[in-house]
Amino acid sequence: MPYSIGNVGPGFDRFGLCLAAPGDTVALRPSDRFRFELAGGASVPADPGTNAAAVAFRAVLGDAAAAPVRLTLTKGYRAGTGIGSSGASAAAGALAAALHGGLDLDGEAARARIVAGAAAGERAACGTGHLDNVLASLFGGFLFLESVTPLRALRWDPVLPAAIVVAVPEAPLATERSRAVLPGVVPHGDAVANLTRAVGLLAGLLRGDPEAVGAHLEDRLAEPYRAALVPGFGTARAAALAAGAWGAAMAGGGPAIFAVTPERWARRVARALLAGFAEGGARAEAFVTGIGAGPELYEGDPEPAGGTAAPVGIAPPGRRRSGRIP
Amino acid sequence: MPYSIGNVGPGFDRFGLCLAAPGDTVALRPSDRFRFELAGGASVPADPGTNAAAVAFRAVLGDAAAAPVRLTLTKGYRAGTGIGSSGASAAAGALAAALHGGLDLDGEAARARIVAGAAAGERAACGTGHLDNVLASLFGGFLFLESVTPLRALRWDPVLPAAIVVAVPEAPLATERSRAVLPGVVPHGDAVANLTRAVGLLAGLLRGDPEAVGAHLEDRLAEPYRAALVPGFGTARAAALAAGAWGAAMAGGGPAIFAVTPERWARRVARALLAGFAEGGARAEAFVTGIGAGPELYEGDPEPAGGTAAPVGIAPPGRRRSGRIP
Repeated sequence: MPYSIGNVGPGFDRFGLCLAAPGDTVALRPSDRFRFELAGGASVPADPGTNAAAVAFRAVLGDAAAAPVRLTLTKGYRAGTGIGSSGASAAAGALAAALHGGLDLDGEAARARIVAGAAAGERAACGTGHLDNVLASLFGGFLFLESVTPLRALRWDPVLPAAIVVAVPEAPLATERSRAVLPGVVPHGDAVANLTRAVGLLAGLLRGDPEAVGAHLEDRLAEPYRAALVPGFGTARAAALAAGAWGAAMAGGGPAIFAVTPERWARRVARALLAGFAEGGARAEAFVTGIGAGPELYEGDPEPAGGTAAPVGIAPPGRRRSGRIP
Repeated sequence: MPYSIGNVGPGFDRFGLCLAAPGDTVALRPSDRFRFELAGGASVPADPGTNAAAVAFRAVLGDAAAAPVRLTLTKGYRAGTGIGSSGASAAAGALAAALHGGLDLDGEAARARIVAGAAAGERAACGTGHLDNVLASLFGGFLFLESVTPLRALRWDPVLPAAIVVAVPEAPLATERSRAVLPGVVPHGDAVANLTRAVGLLAGLLRGDPEAVGAHLEDRLAEPYRAALVPGFGTARAAALAAGAWGAAMAGGGPAIFAVTPERWARRVARALLAGFAEGGARAEAFVTGIGAGPELYEGDPEPAGGTAAPVGIAPPGRRRSGRIP
């Protein structure tokens, strides 16, 4: 189940972008009773009462979660970075439950259960059940959350000749802290600037114009407040633009940053981001990826990220498009 | 030259919607020197130094405005209502100048001159050279002003099975006053609500869904502050929705209101708007129209709004689609 970028610059809590990588893997195997296990030394709770994937699984199936199944979660990346780690786990748990329960995935009722379950998982992991990441992971592409109640979201599959470069500072930033710094009021001009960029970003995506997408990534409703919590953020952003990126913005609530860049400059932009963070005294790592198409289902014995062979589950898509930058 | 609706609900200073009617007519005739005249008892300045059409005409042609031509402006509606009266006059004057000067209308340079000239006319008339109305009048359809400097705008031709009902209170509201009440800061949630609705509105327009368009017309960045200056606005809006409109919002800086409604309820919605204003103690008039396609050029002897026969000029389009509600 792919990770994702919330906000996507100006679209506070409303825009989500599915990444081609990294992704979490969830596997289901027969068991004597419901069990949950975390593969490897992941940085998330192993307790099924608080783990996003386990909570989401049980929320979708309800009592049926007593079904004898062993749910194994293999994390593709650590939590607390801003690229939707908990959202991916929650989405994976919810989708696995729907598959296990034999729900009709094309039906509206099943989708509503999956989304509600994933929201419950997201809430358990980070305190808020925001849906931008969850929906982007589940459905892929670019996601616009039009309305929460009733739930209404629109999805586009952008054809964007661009790479997405993500740089993640070592020091995590908790979602709660990232939300706590948001101001109660904002300048009227900032509100107008964000709505202008949000519409411009969508227009750029619709016409497949990565330069326009990059030009509309600046956010004034959240990033300026959150960037103050992330050493090196400003220098990293400036370095990415100087290295040829069309634009860059904080990934979700941070501390990660993502840049939209011509493919040919992707590695240069990644190195620039790392150098920018280093200038601010922060250690970080970066990787190059692209826009993801959503989760991949498998049966049989694939070899997903964590090497966990499993009969039925959700694999991290598109890993071949991802390369870690040293 | 058609009138237009600025803001279009959530798109503060950035969205414009061309109306099928009303429209201004500009006519050019040979003369011994540059002359400007206003046909009929219009409510706008007759002085060529302050009239939007005359200022725009001269701004486009510069010294060439000394050319011997008589410019006649016939207003299709009065000023100070919020439906882009000055923008239409300014656009008409600028376009007439470009035609008179033999500019290549398909060329980017000519377009830039026309827009700059129209902005000058708009500024002369109402103190600000805002472009949302001007561009919507000039190009028709739905207009998104992506960037002012450099000028960049996107235009869509919505296919929307809906009528636009406009109700105009008798008491005018000056643009300056309407701008003066805007707050310096707005709640963070209002900023997010507006960007969500702006994107949702665009999505609704793109898929030709008038119900979605109506549902996204609510504005929190300007309308709540301006509505307090317009007696009966709130009751008129509520009455329109109760009568079957999909949505309603202030037209530009007000005081007019427009509603997006199924064609079959258009006259009922118009009457409801009038009754709503009356409830607030305000007299108003209403008309039914639709989305306009932009200006119509003519040569020869048509019979435009004011009955002014003229050899070359710009006619108000689509008057047949317009019906005044008593």
